[in-house]
Amino acid sequence: MEDMRETAAQFSRESAPSGEFVRQPNRFTDPVTAEAGRYVLYASLACPWAHRSIIVRELLGLQEALPLRIVDPIRDEKGWRFTLDPDGRDPVTGALYLSELYLGTDPAFEGRVTVPAVWDTVTSRVVSNDYPRLTLTWETTFAPLHRPGAPDLYPEPLRAEIDALNDELFRDVNNGVYRCGFATTQSAYEAAFHALFARLDVLEERLGERRYLHGDAITDSDVRLYTTLVRFDAVYHGHFKCNLRKLAEYPHLWGYARDLYRTPGFGSTTDFDHIKRHYYVTHERINPTRIVPLGPDPALWETPHGRG
Amino acid sequence: MEDMRETAAQFSRESAPSGEFVRQPNRFTDPVTAEAGRYVLYASLACPWAHRSIIVRELLGLQEALPLRIVDPIRDEKGWRFTLDPDGRDPVTGALYLSELYLGTDPAFEGRVTVPAVWDTVTSRVVSNDYPRLTLTWETTFAPLHRPGAPDLYPEPLRAEIDALNDELFRDVNNGVYRCGFATTQSAYEAAFHALFARLDVLEERLGERRYLHGDAITDSDVRLYTTLVRFDAVYHGHFKCNLRKLAEYPHLWGYARDLYRTPGFGSTTDFDHIKRHYYVTHERINPTRIVPLGPDPALWETPHGRG
Repeated sequence: MEDMRETAAQFSRESAPSGEFVRQPNRFTDPVTAEAGRYVLYASLACPWAHRSIIVRELLGLQEALPLRIVDPIRDEKGWRFTLDPDGRDPVTGALYLSELYLGTDPAFEGRVTVPAVWDTVTSRVVSNDYPRLTLTWETTFAPLHRPGAPDLYPEPLRAEIDALNDELFRDVNNGVYRCGFATTQSAYEAAFHALFARLDVLEERLGERRYLHGDAITDSDVRLYTTLVRFDAVYHGHFKCNLRKLAEYPHLWGYARDLYRTPGFGSTTDFDHIKRHYYVTHERINPTRIVPLGPDPALWETPHGRG
Repeated sequence: MEDMRETAAQFSRESAPSGEFVRQPNRFTDPVTAEAGRYVLYASLACPWAHRSIIVRELLGLQEALPLRIVDPIRDEKGWRFTLDPDGRDPVTGALYLSELYLGTDPAFEGRVTVPAVWDTVTSRVVSNDYPRLTLTWETTFAPLHRPGAPDLYPEPLRAEIDALNDELFRDVNNGVYRCGFATTQSAYEAAFHALFARLDVLEERLGERRYLHGDAITDSDVRLYTTLVRFDAVYHGHFKCNLRKLAEYPHLWGYARDLYRTPGFGSTTDFDHIKRHYYVTHERINPTRIVPLGPDPALWETPHGRG
């Protein structure tokens, strides 16, 4: 590219000199214990990292044990807001902004305030925003609180395989789409783009041979892949320039994603309105018009998937 | 949409208070006479309005009679540049910028400098930037200069039908994609979006029944539709948020477009590099990162079209 004018990053503290997006570390990583009602899960329906925990909570029947609070999909300059709650205040803490909980826990915190965040009602502190660990916590530590007959999303014999695949999914897919969209140089974008679509090719082949990523049963890996796939054509394809192909152009991945969508806990927690408004309205360095695309038709998610 | 913050238009003088894009009138509309070598066609390979004239010039064998000069696909703050020419100067006029020719012809001109523009080497003036009229001029006035066996792209018996369809194509498709992409309010965008995709549905049905828009032979209408379709998946789908479906999701339109692409004069004048760099790098109010998406794969245009 001949044009080398400086490009402003959406999140300047997370942009390397190369133009690569480098996601900040998760600030709060305290353990969470299996106590019904002690913790509150703060989440956005828009955010794939939070969506993981929302899906797992549904699959495992943790709705009563782990209360969920949903933030407004549109961040303003002060971040995630409780504007969906009466008077715009979180009924648990009285906060107007999620940042109040972060700064109440760590007054020196200067990073980006993120969801999911787990609030401890006993200590009145944010104990974790460590999204990769959180689903595993709900799946293992919280086992005593699972509903009868809950699936084992992180079975012992598969853990090494799940962990290894989750690492690849994170690098190339879950975070890969962000590395495309938040790149500020052509070369950083292109590297992320090639890694993303190479990985989707591998996954397409894998899902031609089995119903779920690790065989006949849903695991933690499927939850992680789903949260990116369900946002792909509505957001990442255009907004993040992940446009080699749409998800709908991969026969196996598209069937797999719709199979999950129709599974209780997946489609029921997928909110395309929150998803689209969040990305298109919040990232003013990427979409300054803040116009939200009308396509594609979400009814396509209800079409027969031919799996299983 | 709840978010009503002001959005800056890409071209503020062409934005209505409603947020609708209202394209400026064409400033220069003088007649062009059938004289070989008298006129020069200034064009961008990126621009669909200019691409029309480039295709017609090829189809009719006007390459010698009507010299063509190509501007840089990337406009800077002073507009279209001759940076592809030696020393960055147009060899015909010595200009660095196309705007010099506009202002030399009309010093009071304050509009947006556009391609195509036809320069008269006898009077040293821009005589026309009236793109809808120009293809008809090459097709009719320039008939004495056509190559032997040139097609009749504007046959007398079909003119009323061609004119009527061209009006619909302009409103909903050719200019419709711009009305999506340059809208500065959600409502203006949505109106343009619905008109565009309703029209594509009508065209999809029409092209299921015949090879070209007016039957078995290519006409001026096909040239006009092609220039938008060939840019659709590479640019308009993402950059202008025309994302209900990709062109490749319409069986007849996609086959039709590839049929034309393989026809001499169409694919040979289609430059995806110029097209993509122009839109993604030039519209800083829409794509401030100026990153150019890598997808979709242009090799798809070479796949069998199954038409004809």
